[in-house]
Amino acid sequence: MDIVIGVDIGGTKTKIGLVDKNGKCLVQSFFRTREFPDLDDYLDKIKTTSDELLQSLEVKPNILGCGIGAPNASSKNGTIENASNLVWKGSVPILEKLKERMNMPMRIMNDASAAALGEMLFGGAKTMQDFIVITLGTGFGAGIVTNGQLVDGYDGFAGELGHVDMTIGDGRLTGLGVKGGLEAYVSATGLKRTILYMQSKYMVESRFRDVAYNDLHGEDITKAAEEGDEIALKAFDYTANIMGLALANFTAFTQPEAFILMGGLTNSGKWILEPLEKYFNEYLLEVYKGKVNIMLSSMEGKTAAICGAAALIWEKQD
Amino acid sequence: MDIVIGVDIGGTKTKIGLVDKNGKCLVQSFFRTREFPDLDDYLDKIKTTSDELLQSLEVKPNILGCGIGAPNASSKNGTIENASNLVWKGSVPILEKLKERMNMPMRIMNDASAAALGEMLFGGAKTMQDFIVITLGTGFGAGIVTNGQLVDGYDGFAGELGHVDMTIGDGRLTGLGVKGGLEAYVSATGLKRTILYMQSKYMVESRFRDVAYNDLHGEDITKAAEEGDEIALKAFDYTANIMGLALANFTAFTQPEAFILMGGLTNSGKWILEPLEKYFNEYLLEVYKGKVNIMLSSMEGKTAAICGAAALIWEKQD
Repeated sequence: MDIVIGVDIGGTKTKIGLVDKNGKCLVQSFFRTREFPDLDDYLDKIKTTSDELLQSLEVKPNILGCGIGAPNASSKNGTIENASNLVWKGSVPILEKLKERMNMPMRIMNDASAAALGEMLFGGAKTMQDFIVITLGTGFGAGIVTNGQLVDGYDGFAGELGHVDMTIGDGRLTGLGVKGGLEAYVSATGLKRTILYMQSKYMVESRFRDVAYNDLHGEDITKAAEEGDEIALKAFDYTANIMGLALANFTAFTQPEAFILMGGLTNSGKWILEPLEKYFNEYLLEVYKGKVNIMLSSMEGKTAAICGAAALIWEKQD
Repeated sequence: MDIVIGVDIGGTKTKIGLVDKNGKCLVQSFFRTREFPDLDDYLDKIKTTSDELLQSLEVKPNILGCGIGAPNASSKNGTIENASNLVWKGSVPILEKLKERMNMPMRIMNDASAAALGEMLFGGAKTMQDFIVITLGTGFGAGIVTNGQLVDGYDGFAGELGHVDMTIGDGRLTGLGVKGGLEAYVSATGLKRTILYMQSKYMVESRFRDVAYNDLHGEDITKAAEEGDEIALKAFDYTANIMGLALANFTAFTQPEAFILMGGLTNSGKWILEPLEKYFNEYLLEVYKGKVNIMLSSMEGKTAAICGAAALIWEKQD
């Protein structure tokens, strides 16, 4: 049985799974990224976790390679560069160092670009030539496909839309210090920041008056919205407004057929989606109206990123 | 001799030329677009102008086809739709109607996309796979190339970046009524609007205190800057600031190797380019620094748009 090892390097978790040719993740595992601040230890951990997964299969698999999705990864250089959500600083030659441990075909790509490949091979974008995957986790990532091809950019760093400045003037700082950067507003983290902002702006009561930033969790914000908590509702509306404008702007760039959303923020369901649809259509240029879908990824949340990473190797097979 | 008819439909002028396989415009002519408010009269005028040009050649040419660049043109539909700078409203089936008059292979495309094709075939982008052409005339247009291919979008309307909203909140309205739209600031027209804005904001003396909006011309603004007119200098700085931010944002989208600028505003030379370079590098994400060039089109200004339009047909020849 042919399989591909998919590795999703996230700011919080590193997920590893074995993916078959239909995009099914047969087995998976994860560990906390921050527990391995030393790069060599971290890469050893990827190796041992992969080995454990491989040994757990009943049939001995034929390993085609290893695909890796990571923030700020350059597919062309095989590196992760200045990722604000990871502890290793500067330019990390991750592909080269992992190859020393695992001798097999290997590719690395920006996590959102990998997710876009996954959607194209295994998910909701099988029939699409022009679409954008948006990942809404710790940060805001984008994987852009035009003319049926992933947009990599001159140097492999296309799609860093989380650091697009949405404000002429003064805005929140992203992890990379970009003023007004999109992901400072539109991401799971951005929503938490907005919960604080709304409490600073309005004097209304809220369950969050008793919760510190580090104790804030996305699911609690969703629950609060369901209970009618005004701060939560205002926070979703504010997030959706900026996101609606951003997606309308992105439409003017490559005119995708659809935006496919995934990641923690999408777990808030209608609380983010309904105002998002409203603002998006309000901002969308007339010529695009009715032509651009916003949809949730149909891939299973827990394995979508792993399957996206594995798609880097699967797309090269015939 | 093989030639292609190139037609550039602009808000002010319609330019027509005959272009050989090296991108040389052999003869050209123009007329004022607004003198033909009736679409049929306008298309007749394109036909007669083309015929005159063809007859002016000493050798009888072999006509391969006609390429058309126009604002808000859809390559997929063969239409111009809701172009704010043209008098014909709604969806104009220009390709179909022109074919009734000129029976030959014909393609239409957004003018900036056509310009990008022209740069790829004949100009400074011959060796590039990822670049963006920016046209700075009455409006702000963008022709985006990734993976060596023009980005058309799902429906042929990619690259409408002039209507990207650069402000969360309140901004100038574009011709399409988009609040804060980029071309309301960054275009030959935007610069004129900024000359008024600066006079409203500052009380300093300026030669423009005696000039009404309709009498403002780009070359006078350049001349004023050369003479140290503070309003002109502030206007260039303000324009360059917004443009620098926009180009830095666009870089995060497709990571082009270069931005190639053309159109009226570029005639202001260093007055726009020097502050643009400064702001662009200030806003650019660290990971892109030193990797993205801003350059002027090397194509001859008067015929660049015609050659771009002709490139629509030339790119299909082998």
